Amino acid sequence: MIPPVISKVFSCYLALLYLNCLTDLRFYLNKTSYLCPQFSGGKLFHIGRLSTVDLEEEIDEEESVVSRPKEIPHNEKLLSLKYESLDYDNSENQLFLEEERRMSQMGFKCLEMSRWLVCALIGILTGLIACFIDIVVENLAGLKYQVIQQNIERFTETGGLSISLILWVLLNSAFVMVGSVIVAFFEPIAAGSGIPQIKCYLNGVKIPRVVRLKTLVVKVCGVICSVVGGLAVGKEGPMIHSGAVVAAGISQGRSTSLKRDFKIFEYFRRDTEKRDFVSAGAAAGVSAAFGAPVGGVLFSLEEGASFWNQMLTWRIFFASMISTFTLNFFMSIYHNKPGDFSNPGLINFGRFDSDSTEYYLYEIPLFIIMGAFGGLLGALFNVLNYWLTILRIRYIHRPCLQVMEAVLVAAVTATVSFTMIYFSDDCQPLGEDQLEEYPLQLFCADGEYNSMATAVFNTPERSVRSLFHSPAGSYNPVTLGIFTITYFFLACWTYGLTVSAGVFIPSLLIGAAWGRLFGILLASFTPHNSIQTLADPGKYALIGAAAQLGGIVRMTLSLTVIMVEATGNVTYGLPIMLVLMTAKIVGDYFVEGLYDIHIKLQSVPFLHWDAPATSHSLTAREVMSSPVTCFNLVEKVGTIVDVLSNTSTNHNGFPVVSRLSDGCEPGKICGLILRSQLIVLLKHKVFVERARSRLNQRKLQLKDFRDAYPRFPPIQSIHVSQDERECMMDLTEFMNPTPYTVTQETSLPRVFKLFRALGLRHLIVVDSDNQVVGLVTRKDLARYHLGKHGLEELQLAQT
Amino acid sequence: MIPPVISKVFSCYLALLYLNCLTDLRFYLNKTSYLCPQFSGGKLFHIGRLSTVDLEEEIDEEESVVSRPKEIPHNEKLLSLKYESLDYDNSENQLFLEEERRMSQMGFKCLEMSRWLVCALIGILTGLIACFIDIVVENLAGLKYQVIQQNIERFTETGGLSISLILWVLLNSAFVMVGSVIVAFFEPIAAGSGIPQIKCYLNGVKIPRVVRLKTLVVKVCGVICSVVGGLAVGKEGPMIHSGAVVAAGISQGRSTSLKRDFKIFEYFRRDTEKRDFVSAGAAAGVSAAFGAPVGGVLFSLEEGASFWNQMLTWRIFFASMISTFTLNFFMSIYHNKPGDFSNPGLINFGRFDSDSTEYYLYEIPLFIIMGAFGGLLGALFNVLNYWLTILRIRYIHRPCLQVMEAVLVAAVTATVSFTMIYFSDDCQPLGEDQLEEYPLQLFCADGEYNSMATAVFNTPERSVRSLFHSPAGSYNPVTLGIFTITYFFLACWTYGLTVSAGVFIPSLLIGAAWGRLFGILLASFTPHNSIQTLADPGKYALIGAAAQLGGIVRMTLSLTVIMVEATGNVTYGLPIMLVLMTAKIVGDYFVEGLYDIHIKLQSVPFLHWDAPATSHSLTAREVMSSPVTCFNLVEKVGTIVDVLSNTSTNHNGFPVVSRLSDGCEPGKICGLILRSQLIVLLKHKVFVERARSRLNQRKLQLKDFRDAYPRFPPIQSIHVSQDERECMMDLTEFMNPTPYTVTQETSLPRVFKLFRALGLRHLIVVDSDNQVVGLVTRKDLARYHLGKHGLEELQLAQT
Repeated sequence: MIPPVISKVFSCYLALLYLNCLTDLRFYLNKTSYLCPQFSGGKLFHIGRLSTVDLEEEIDEEESVVSRPKEIPHNEKLLSLKYESLDYDNSENQLFLEEERRMSQMGFKCLEMSRWLVCALIGILTGLIACFIDIVVENLAGLKYQVIQQNIERFTETGGLSISLILWVLLNSAFVMVGSVIVAFFEPIAAGSGIPQIKCYLNGVKIPRVVRLKTLVVKVCGVICSVVGGLAVGKEGPMIHSGAVVAAGISQGRSTSLKRDFKIFEYFRRDTEKRDFVSAGAAAGVSAAFGAPVGGVLFSLEEGASFWNQMLTWRIFFASMISTFTLNFFMSIYHNKPGDFSNPGLINFGRFDSDSTEYYLYEIPLFIIMGAFGGLLGALFNVLNYWLTILRIRYIHRPCLQVMEAVLVAAVTATVSFTMIYFSDDCQPLGEDQLEEYPLQLFCADGEYNSMATAVFNTPERSVRSLFHSPAGSYNPVTLGIFTITYFFLACWTYGLTVSAGVFIPSLLIGAAWGRLFGILLASFTPHNSIQTLADPGKYALIGAAAQLGGIVRMTLSLTVIMVEATGNVTYGLPIMLVLMTAKIVGDYFVEGLYDIHIKLQSVPFLHWDAPATSHSLTAREVMSSPVTCFNLVEKVGTIVDVLSNTSTNHNGFPVVSRLSDGCEPGKICGLILRSQLIVLLKHKVFVERARSRLNQRKLQLKDFRDAYPRFPPIQSIHVSQDERECMMDLTEFMNPTPYTVTQETSLPRVFKLFRALGLRHLIVVDSDNQVVGLVTRKDLARYHLGKHGLEELQLAQT
Repeated sequence: MIPPVISKVFSCYLALLYLNCLTDLRFYLNKTSYLCPQFSGGKLFHIGRLSTVDLEEEIDEEESVVSRPKEIPHNEKLLSLKYESLDYDNSENQLFLEEERRMSQMGFKCLEMSRWLVCALIGILTGLIACFIDIVVENLAGLKYQVIQQNIERFTETGGLSISLILWVLLNSAFVMVGSVIVAFFEPIAAGSGIPQIKCYLNGVKIPRVVRLKTLVVKVCGVICSVVGGLAVGKEGPMIHSGAVVAAGISQGRSTSLKRDFKIFEYFRRDTEKRDFVSAGAAAGVSAAFGAPVGGVLFSLEEGASFWNQMLTWRIFFASMISTFTLNFFMSIYHNKPGDFSNPGLINFGRFDSDSTEYYLYEIPLFIIMGAFGGLLGALFNVLNYWLTILRIRYIHRPCLQVMEAVLVAAVTATVSFTMIYFSDDCQPLGEDQLEEYPLQLFCADGEYNSMATAVFNTPERSVRSLFHSPAGSYNPVTLGIFTITYFFLACWTYGLTVSAGVFIPSLLIGAAWGRLFGILLASFTPHNSIQTLADPGKYALIGAAAQLGGIVRMTLSLTVIMVEATGNVTYGLPIMLVLMTAKIVGDYFVEGLYDIHIKLQSVPFLHWDAPATSHSLTAREVMSSPVTCFNLVEKVGTIVDVLSNTSTNHNGFPVVSRLSDGCEPGKICGLILRSQLIVLLKHKVFVERARSRLNQRKLQLKDFRDAYPRFPPIQSIHVSQDERECMMDLTEFMNPTPYTVTQETSLPRVFKLFRALGLRHLIVVDSDNQVVGLVTRKDLARYHLGKHGLEELQLAQT
């Protein structure tokens, strides 16, 4: 059946790539202290250069891809120091206050209106991107399946089906290779679903290159290739990332990649505004992906919100609505049914009729059991994927190896699918209401089709819908069982490949398959008089899908709403919610959610909602970093340059103090100044000695800071002569004069809450005389977490 | 037709109650400085006693109803000093830290589980209450309408219809009188929908008596009476209040009214936890009222959230889900269709089929025009109701007058309805699918019914559904026009009566009527070939309903989701959203939302989301109250008692400072102690001099503070002997040692954000030496608002 030459090639691949990896299993065992010898610069998140000076977004990108760090921690007991926080807190210096004072009430209204305009644009563009992806995927995948179908039909009779298999494998591999090459060689951060990265960004962590135009282009092309290439992936997750990039791009009114500045929306060029818009973009992405505008808003809030703001939420909702509407509108035109707004998202679960939406109280325990099963299976998925990811970090770090692995997975997927179809004897009669787009007859009788082919010879979205809505009896239990097991391992292997792809749809598909199986088995075990109510396996497929997805990603509120909106039926709200809760509780007992695992593997200083419950005994004194590098109100330029150039500290915020010239004791706090501000000041040579000559020049304005945002030049690129080093800089006008401060006795939960609620980057700790004694940053807080044995502390790693 | 005797009685009522009011219109004109000579103690919110000492929730309730304040401001240029804030910020004193340290990780898990349990109980009980209200209203109203229908049918032939009118008037008046009497005489705070009060509570303002058991009982009985009494009211608004009361009651594990303490959930006896549970209760109420669990969560967040917390939101959602499920479950049993979960809320808009959910792009401008019209009409409604409310505050302040007015409105409503039916000649054939519960034939031909009667001879919920779903042609434009106008004024007159009732349903009904009218007119003005798409006036009824409701209450996000969930169709999301936005923008141009008007009329210090846009030039120095009453770390009991007894200041939070014994200069900040804490300390006589003897007694624990919560005794009730006055009290252990502080230069928006995000009650302002120079409270921030001419400042009134 399968020609021996192909199987030989596969075994070679396998031997080459995996065998040597698997021999080295010892590092799981002592993984707490193990550091990988090598690491791919851009496997999950792009890792910047080793030099810690320019860990701000780099100017020269290409170079950074080439130079790779040698020692990268890859385990969750470490916390990387290389990720910086976003400055969500506004620096209210004198320049800012002057600008605000100059603005009239009308000015604020215009600003508000332009925020709405930006959100509308975000929604429209995100919807259009979703539309583009959908149409291209539909056409390319349709073409591919038609070609293969014809080929299979031709060779079923004559008996050369191995040629069909080769055709299928080649087609899939070709698409996946293209998708993988662009990701691996051009923009490694575009790999995966992008949801972990967006979670981090919304949490307030600056992930380099994550919201760039290039990332978007690669992401969109990559996802098309991987879906058309028949991988066990979905196109929904990447939409969230795409929406976020769109938002970051539009709101800044310029593109640094294209070197175009449209001179609009200049006011929004700061972290606070940008992060708000990125929330809207992520919501618009969810909305377009699942047709779930409310779910999108809740996703953004769940991942990003610190301080809930009504107007902001309302704008986010607006962007979401516009996004799903745009998608719907253009899809209705594309399908030649203008006005038919029944395609609100990339995936539609189809309409669950009100007849079949009944469920009984006694079914709820059944649903909960399914939730627990989903949690178990999800935990298994996550553990397997965790091991696989560590293997990948360790061995498959060169782009060419990554591409090879992706192609291998594509080939294996096609082969396995073909084999399953080939050996399946589940023939079903072709119905009137043909849900199957590409029915394969194969060895079935005339007027029948191969049921396994509906599940695997199809885009995953269609397979999900078919499992939800095909009438009872469309699938035979054996088919479903084999499909579940195969697809589970395929999906697990696929997530983390160097391709752009999401895990939502594969999870749903696995869950729908075993859920439907569960429903069929249940019906066969119950007496005949109650079969009426249990006759609908589609209901169990839905619950199973929710359970599996919940068990893998462990989202709660937003996922419930997304599922409810995607089914278009609020009746299932409670069951879905209970199932997701159960899956989360059971799954969390074993291992974290998939996204959290990947975030932890990158040692990102991610702040959760609350400080660990038992951390009240810790105070700011124990948490803070000390001593702190401070500047005087009027500071020597040389000192500033030296401090900024010190690669061993690489601080980003400096308390400004007033102290006596002897400087023996710490000074009283006067304000806080950021590295980025100092760099702009140095660049414009705002020195006291030049004040007189500056009178002729224009005064430094906020605009100068905004123009430099977000890629502030590194300190090395600024030339300061020996004469200038002796000059003085007056920071009074530029520092934030009223930073938030706490005393040393403040408990960790209190510090945490202040930090989280206000989106801070630096929190100054003072003593009773208002003298600076320490500084709390994101890493100081993220260090503490609740482990199995109470409060644990992560190590900080300078990488 | 109408017997002269009845009309005479009416004109007497009118003359008595209104004519003298209307002659005195001048006070609108100079309302900025006008103070009402008299004011009803419990018209909108219950006003406590005049003495400012015990403005905390009173112990002796009955007395407070009797003694009424003489001078109450009733206009929006004042800010009352009598409302206190909730202490959302946790006082992390040594007792608290010790308790936390003693708790194991398991202890925290148990606590978390009991939070979930409480939320489940809240959901179940709220659902049951909704169920009870629904069933009782359905049966009583059904009985009433049947009796009247039979009577009308009997007298249509014989010609004594005035007797039917009298019967109708008497029945309505009787019900309304009962409902009004219990509200006016027993619990005035139960009047109205309760939404403004819950908004205030969630915002952090302590409204006395608003979450008591008695309030709940009166509210539930009151709303049944007013709906059965045929007033233009809905039973949905009060559900939100009911849910909140349920939550406050269950979470405390005791009822002070019933004098029962179940000794459970003692940990939750503090403002922070209670407010969180009340959020869940309000959400459960919305969920039960509209079958909108997500809308409920968003309502709570929109009104209450400061700091978004994922677990809290998830619990709120859980309560909402349980609530709608409980209602649905018991209603399905009641309707003998177990398992049919199609009654998720008290009001169901019915299922909008997917055939009729189409709309075209060119319809969107039409929807926006409707939104603008709804905004205009809503503004008119609000202005009229504003005037009426001022009239009521001024003239109708005695409970008996309030009852009389309510009965009058009931009588007028019945009369007007009867008149409209009587003079209507809109006869429609009785269809197969009979949406009309009580079809009145009257003078129509056999097999026909009076179409006006469907609109007014019915509970408002059914009328709304009929307007949404009756086939095209069921209503004649004239009927709809007359109905809109009449019902508009009736509803406007009704809102603010001393009955428990909501404004949601009347608003929807008005909007549905003119929306349907709009749809009919549109269809008649458009050429025939496009009539197909416009043939469904139900669609326009829905949009009109949204526009009218949005124009009156001006909610945005949560209302959109509530409407979408109630229609069960996500397709209308965008139109509803656009309509609500337009209605809000247009309406806000003229006047605020109805709830906000009523909140302002009570001079509640309500904090909005952000500080006014142009307030960056204000700093804490200008905003704060100064000088501040401080205590020393070890303070003389006499001083404390004197300060607490000082009725002219009535402070609730006192900074604790360490200062030299001469006390010349302000001391350094050491902590913050609350009035309630001091009172407990005084009650337990925790004096330094007794420390030795106290060694034998048990140490004061957090439990003692919790037991006293929330009705801390007034200072007068605590006897302190002259000897004891000389003792000293050590506050170190009990004060919050790490209160949040800001410097004097901090801008108002920054102070505001800190205050709002953390739910503070007191924020201490310090100078550069950490010496206390001022204190910012809720009132200091609420004082500033953006008026027509820029930043305006409200006066503070000691009432």
